[in-house]
Amino acid sequence: MALNIFRKKSEYAFKLERILGFYPKQISLYQQAFTHKSMLISTNKPVYESNERLEFLGDAILDAVISVYIFKKFPFKDEGFLTQLRSKLVSRHFLNNLASKIGLNEFIESNLDRESKTVLGDALEALIGAIYLDKGFKKAEEFVLIRLFETHVVLEDVLETETDYKSRTIEYAQKGKHKIEFESEELGEGNKKFYKVKLFIDNQLLGVGEAISKKLAEQIACEQFFKEKEENSN
Amino acid sequence: MALNIFRKKSEYAFKLERILGFYPKQISLYQQAFTHKSMLISTNKPVYESNERLEFLGDAILDAVISVYIFKKFPFKDEGFLTQLRSKLVSRHFLNNLASKIGLNEFIESNLDRESKTVLGDALEALIGAIYLDKGFKKAEEFVLIRLFETHVVLEDVLETETDYKSRTIEYAQKGKHKIEFESEELGEGNKKFYKVKLFIDNQLLGVGEAISKKLAEQIACEQFFKEKEENSN
Repeated sequence: MALNIFRKKSEYAFKLERILGFYPKQISLYQQAFTHKSMLISTNKPVYESNERLEFLGDAILDAVISVYIFKKFPFKDEGFLTQLRSKLVSRHFLNNLASKIGLNEFIESNLDRESKTVLGDALEALIGAIYLDKGFKKAEEFVLIRLFETHVVLEDVLETETDYKSRTIEYAQKGKHKIEFESEELGEGNKKFYKVKLFIDNQLLGVGEAISKKLAEQIACEQFFKEKEENSN
Repeated sequence: MALNIFRKKSEYAFKLERILGFYPKQISLYQQAFTHKSMLISTNKPVYESNERLEFLGDAILDAVISVYIFKKFPFKDEGFLTQLRSKLVSRHFLNNLASKIGLNEFIESNLDRESKTVLGDALEALIGAIYLDKGFKKAEEFVLIRLFETHVVLEDVLETETDYKSRTIEYAQKGKHKIEFESEELGEGNKKFYKVKLFIDNQLLGVGEAISKKLAEQIACEQFFKEKEENSN
């Protein structure tokens, strides 16, 4: 029996090793990283045993690693460029895809009725938190840069993609057969003129944006909608 | 002359050492961390030589260090608690005060007409970025935890402070003799009822908040106003 558990544990560790690029030490950390809170609610365990705390930690470590990486890679770019690029590289959408590419779905323990892509991105962040606790900053950095970025990310492509929230919102509405409306107002006078755009989905006000161009105000309204949707789906 | 420069450099390094707790190696990094972009504009140097890039980097390193710190300090608290506490500890307001306490004002090179407290907080973040580049993650972590937190922060006090944006907004309006108005609307039906609050300062719409209570909607509107004000003062 004990031998069996031991064998099971080491099988799990070997499977993990293929993703991590190193042999994990504290297996329980990784198991926690893959445990969605829906698992614990159904087994009456406290929520702090889910991956949410590790996700909090991993999110910050990932941010730091990516910041260092692009800071060094683009020595003549200003802070605005770096901030924009980082926000693309840590976006939920981007992380969900990365998690999917490295095959995290195999590991995730959840009890959700429907599959949610966000669970994948969250687990990836939690995994980075687990690596940090198990092996330190350097190893977490190596994992992100070598296993994730060098293998799966073409930075040039990311630089070219626009985070076009309006297109994504329209796509979402079409898929789900939702009614979508933009209502825009011109406000202010002279060179203080600006646009206020309200986004209604199924007659519900779900985003507001204000900017000096109507196009940008629409993007902001759609971005607000998307970010809240993503937060609520957590 | 050369000897003079050398002596000057080492005087600067010794002065810095009193703040850092270690002797700095790459002095130019620290000089850059204290250079506000207003200095470069007046001397026709490119803005990437200002502290903005280092601030971008230091902000992320600080976030990671604080996340690790509170993650370990509060092992049974959930992610919501950790996120809220972290946002207090990295707020502009909090960092400005810390920077002031360790005496960063002595080092800052700027060409601003009026003194801005934000310049201090920004320089502190940039300093953390400089330490990371000069000495690595561990040293940056040590600086934040030992030199800043252990010496100047009582975590219990921070936990107790409410980030009361409404009080801060009213205080701001009173100080500057601005007219302040809240306009609230009740929207939705039944248990989907919510409040929308608009904040007007000198008749300008400067914040909007929506929430299930009027009080919370006011806080959100004031928070929006404050964050934009802080961003604009950068």
